[in-house]
Amino acid sequence: MYEILDRINSPEDVKKLNLDELNLLASDIREALFNRLTKFGGHCGPNFGIVECEIAMHYVFSSPKDKFVFDVSHQSYPHKMLTGRRLGYTDDNYFASDSGYTNPEESEHDLFNVGHTSTSISLATGLAKARDIKNTKENIIALIGDGSLSGGEALEGLNVAGSEIKSNLIIIVNDNQQSISETHGGIYENLRRLRESKGTCENNIFKSFNLDYIYEDNGNDIEALIKVFEKVKDIDHPIVVHINTLKGKGFKLAEENKEAWHWTMPFDRETGKSKFSFDGESYVSIAHDFIINKAKSDKNFVVVTPNMPASFALTPQDRQQLGSQFVDVGIAEEQAVAMASGLSKGGANPLVITNTTFIQRAFDQIHQDVCINNNPLTILLNYSSFSGLTDVTHLGIFGISMLSNIPNLVTLAPTCKTELIEMLNWSTSQKAHPVAILLPGNNVEDRKVDTNFENNKFAMEQKGEKVAIIALGDFYQMGEDLAKAIKKQLGFTPTLINPRFASCVDVDLLKSLEKDHKLIVTLEDGIIDGGFGEKVASKLGTSPMLVKNYGLEKKFYDRYDPLELLNELKMTKEFIVEDIKEILK
Amino acid sequence: MYEILDRINSPEDVKKLNLDELNLLASDIREALFNRLTKFGGHCGPNFGIVECEIAMHYVFSSPKDKFVFDVSHQSYPHKMLTGRRLGYTDDNYFASDSGYTNPEESEHDLFNVGHTSTSISLATGLAKARDIKNTKENIIALIGDGSLSGGEALEGLNVAGSEIKSNLIIIVNDNQQSISETHGGIYENLRRLRESKGTCENNIFKSFNLDYIYEDNGNDIEALIKVFEKVKDIDHPIVVHINTLKGKGFKLAEENKEAWHWTMPFDRETGKSKFSFDGESYVSIAHDFIINKAKSDKNFVVVTPNMPASFALTPQDRQQLGSQFVDVGIAEEQAVAMASGLSKGGANPLVITNTTFIQRAFDQIHQDVCINNNPLTILLNYSSFSGLTDVTHLGIFGISMLSNIPNLVTLAPTCKTELIEMLNWSTSQKAHPVAILLPGNNVEDRKVDTNFENNKFAMEQKGEKVAIIALGDFYQMGEDLAKAIKKQLGFTPTLINPRFASCVDVDLLKSLEKDHKLIVTLEDGIIDGGFGEKVASKLGTSPMLVKNYGLEKKFYDRYDPLELLNELKMTKEFIVEDIKEILK
Repeated sequence: MYEILDRINSPEDVKKLNLDELNLLASDIREALFNRLTKFGGHCGPNFGIVECEIAMHYVFSSPKDKFVFDVSHQSYPHKMLTGRRLGYTDDNYFASDSGYTNPEESEHDLFNVGHTSTSISLATGLAKARDIKNTKENIIALIGDGSLSGGEALEGLNVAGSEIKSNLIIIVNDNQQSISETHGGIYENLRRLRESKGTCENNIFKSFNLDYIYEDNGNDIEALIKVFEKVKDIDHPIVVHINTLKGKGFKLAEENKEAWHWTMPFDRETGKSKFSFDGESYVSIAHDFIINKAKSDKNFVVVTPNMPASFALTPQDRQQLGSQFVDVGIAEEQAVAMASGLSKGGANPLVITNTTFIQRAFDQIHQDVCINNNPLTILLNYSSFSGLTDVTHLGIFGISMLSNIPNLVTLAPTCKTELIEMLNWSTSQKAHPVAILLPGNNVEDRKVDTNFENNKFAMEQKGEKVAIIALGDFYQMGEDLAKAIKKQLGFTPTLINPRFASCVDVDLLKSLEKDHKLIVTLEDGIIDGGFGEKVASKLGTSPMLVKNYGLEKKFYDRYDPLELLNELKMTKEFIVEDIKEILK
Repeated sequence: MYEILDRINSPEDVKKLNLDELNLLASDIREALFNRLTKFGGHCGPNFGIVECEIAMHYVFSSPKDKFVFDVSHQSYPHKMLTGRRLGYTDDNYFASDSGYTNPEESEHDLFNVGHTSTSISLATGLAKARDIKNTKENIIALIGDGSLSGGEALEGLNVAGSEIKSNLIIIVNDNQQSISETHGGIYENLRRLRESKGTCENNIFKSFNLDYIYEDNGNDIEALIKVFEKVKDIDHPIVVHINTLKGKGFKLAEENKEAWHWTMPFDRETGKSKFSFDGESYVSIAHDFIINKAKSDKNFVVVTPNMPASFALTPQDRQQLGSQFVDVGIAEEQAVAMASGLSKGGANPLVITNTTFIQRAFDQIHQDVCINNNPLTILLNYSSFSGLTDVTHLGIFGISMLSNIPNLVTLAPTCKTELIEMLNWSTSQKAHPVAILLPGNNVEDRKVDTNFENNKFAMEQKGEKVAIIALGDFYQMGEDLAKAIKKQLGFTPTLINPRFASCVDVDLLKSLEKDHKLIVTLEDGIIDGGFGEKVASKLGTSPMLVKNYGLEKKFYDRYDPLELLNELKMTKEFIVEDIKEILK
């Protein structure tokens, strides 16, 4: 089926091919991409566009002696196919064993586990420096997309590469004129002028960082790429190789709609139709509608995003409609958060939207630029749940422990539709606090909720006895189920509390439970360490009340089944009821 | 005494002066700088060099209508003198009331509390965007030093300013050819060529970000600055005003040794000699000597710092001696940590050094680039104690809660000289873990310690009864004192434990205490929220053992007296003994 690819067991096999065979190999790789993506989903456009480049890289350089560092590594599928892992793409039985990102546990050809953008140049400067210290001679090659260049870490890396590395370092800039959504930033105007002038225009951004530079217009032409890579191979100083590629190349739908095909669910190859369509109400659609409506009613409301409008289903049409009330800063979380602080200070009403895992980039900006200044604004985070993204580099389970220990920041964990909307209404209309809201990851539920969020009070949902369940955010429904199981199996009605706030403890309420409760059980959708439950345990440390915290371990989980994980962690209601029985004995 | 300055009560008074008077005002400001700095200490070189610029800014623009954003804001003293706060510089009685940084609580002329670098452009883009939304017309001016330009947040800001802001934004680049130590990065080669060509050279870094640009060579000439600021005032698009200044201008010693005079303790004006000299052994000198010796014995050992060699007393001579084993990446924490991960992967043995507050910038890089990859390296952090830097923007008290909840990271808190050295010896020779070490802030103590750091075990220092004191890191000596006070006042010998690890709990040891102890007291030099004590309370939540956590509140403290703060928090041994008596009743 795959005439050439089936013979490729290592990069050595690529080197033996002639140009015609290399081009056939590119076709095979695209077929294999279709095979995996139509059935399993994954990153689409980035991989279709980089096929020729990665073939040429393996043809010219000698991995693993020469070291490749892939930025984000969502474009590493062709590389993986060429380094002994083609079955992960050609054979359905092996899909799940391939991580979709570079992964040193899979192969010696992968240097780092990577899933956040803009890291490749910095990591490569470290490899280059280590090589020089050890006095060896391999090539160090970073492959970075144009979209990743807006991130501060990449720009810091360019700056350091331009002066502190005096030896071989090859930075391939894969310019496909697209980030996740469209690119944003002055640097992209520079890249456009460089492409249009075939690399000769004035004020070359890379040269201004003191780097050598070479341009290749035919970034999807294996022969041209081999020539340019042979030119820079074994070079004795850092150089940027700027190549012009087509994102989605060879898959017409992806070429035509780059944003929609950046990442895909399994789909029908002919029609492009997703195999898992879902048009119902979701917490994303609720947040989306809130944003659109709020922008209409409040002209000072401004949405700021580090290139993640898709996480809240804000389509290009939505963004056009939002107009000047929408700012995409490119992949640049530090800028997004600091700019939002400036917007707040200037009297606007900013909402920052992105994923929980990516906001880690702005920890210091949330702390310093926002919270020390106590500038009111809202940060709304998708994929905060352990049941969301399960790749090790994209876990949302660290959000609570990161956010809830920053002074002045109110971190809210809504448990249903009305509560999400009311929390958004409150946070975007008050002027006293910076607020973070963790978007639920469950199916949409709804019920009547307390809408006072100024009081730092937990909500008593069911007053019972002996055991109080404090079930935060996404785990509230688990708390409801647990309450029912306790009633049924242990014969009493426990208390059920919706804490609402991940960032504070309602000590008065907890103290009031002491008279007729023996145990508090906390449930949270995140790691226990540094999280919500530990705060409860600490506040009640000298009380006779016992406290049992349930949550995830401080661990880098990777590609797990959420239900199985709950079982492994003994966090199902069956296990918890057994624990409670034991503790109450 | 201050002929002109004494008449300046607001920027309006600056506008009334003629050029001769403005120049006299500059002399007055320098005298006032001497007055404060010789007696009170503070940032020296940055302020001496920026006097003319800030006078010209207030002469041309109209603060607070026009909005000034100061990067780091350690160069804001002249601005403060011109905005109603001259007494903080001219009158000893007012020194303490002036924060030394911009501070909105002090004046409407200060927009943000700032103390970390590289934030001004991002904050200013937010103010500019808010202005446009509200349809007003004021100038937005960011003042940023060349040293701050290496930080990712500043570069992200330049990128966004270059495309997303279509209106007035003036970025003054104060190029004094110095960061905290010397500058590092390709961008500084670009600035050099721009200065030498009077702003006309090829590949202008600012133009490459799509920004307009103007150069002024006489950055310490009020007349020239007024002219250039008048030219850009009310401009309808973003522009960079690159001015060439002399750091330390008007103070010969500071002009000659820019690194030594970046920040100063009180000093004698004639000789420059510090009024508080300390030549004895300190934890900094111990760490310094370790670094120098380790570099000699291990050729793969590489020190990486984001421009903070001074925090570990690494002089220019030391750095020269370290040679290729020392890498200063400029102020760029993300790059420092990611580069160290690359160094580790490449087989080198990296040690990252900086201050606890600044490593916040690299939270995501520690998490993703280092810890997911579990690359062995050491991060050594100064000013981790509440008794170190007490400015709100420089607190070390958030270090434990930031670091100790990241999987795979071993966070160590040494309690004495031998333990610090042995922890450094261990962490820089093992190949299994990334390690963070919190440098103690106390006076140097020493005693015999357990040197096994592979076992995740707490060290039992004194086996007693009833009460176990777990005293982490810098608060270990407080634990010793507390143990003695308990013996004396309550008549029994408590157990004393040195946990050594801030990132794990020795559950076996704690469980073994249950038979003859009723209470565990934890002491930690950081906020309780997300910290060490909460982990202990959580692990013992269902045990009959009571747990009382002592530490700081989740709060932005500012310029406090450490001893007074302990008293306020009721954390002195006297208060704690009273608490214990009450709990044991």
